[in-house]
Amino acid sequence: MSIFSYLLPKRQNTATVAKERLQIIVARERSVRGGPDYLPRLQEELLAVVRKYVPVDPEAVSVQMDRESGCEILELNITLPEKD
Amino acid sequence: MSIFSYLLPKRQNTATVAKERLQIIVARERSVRGGPDYLPRLQEELLAVVRKYVPVDPEAVSVQMDRESGCEILELNITLPEKD
Repeated sequence: MSIFSYLLPKRQNTATVAKERLQIIVARERSVRGGPDYLPRLQEELLAVVRKYVPVDPEAVSVQMDRESGCEILELNITLPEKD
Repeated sequence: MSIFSYLLPKRQNTATVAKERLQIIVARERSVRGGPDYLPRLQEELLAVVRKYVPVDPEAVSVQMDRESGCEILELNITLPEKD
């Protein structure tokens, strides 16, 4: 079983399959020293970078933040608009 | 079993555990229309964004690119330097 089984799990076999999707996952293993929590700001800047390459509708972005066993996980799921 | 089992799998229980690690995974589901392959350029820009927040040694970055069943997966593993 590979990580690919978990990435982009919402694949659709309908007419909307022509849409392109992009998923960005940032996992930060926090050291014992702690440190500033920069993931929320990082999220904004990562989206800005993606926008340089493809148009992104703000409503087409879903963001999830999780914490588990010393890790912070930031997950961005972006559905890109269909080409004109 | 969750995706967390697959993120940051090289956790070390040694003296180096104080190091902080960051992992960025970008998964792009290619649409039937194809489109330009912007992931390599995106990778450079994502690293530039991370460098705004934390110092990154170029030698501490490993990059992997995979393709599987219509997906391109870009994986960046970054070991952040210990604080002075």
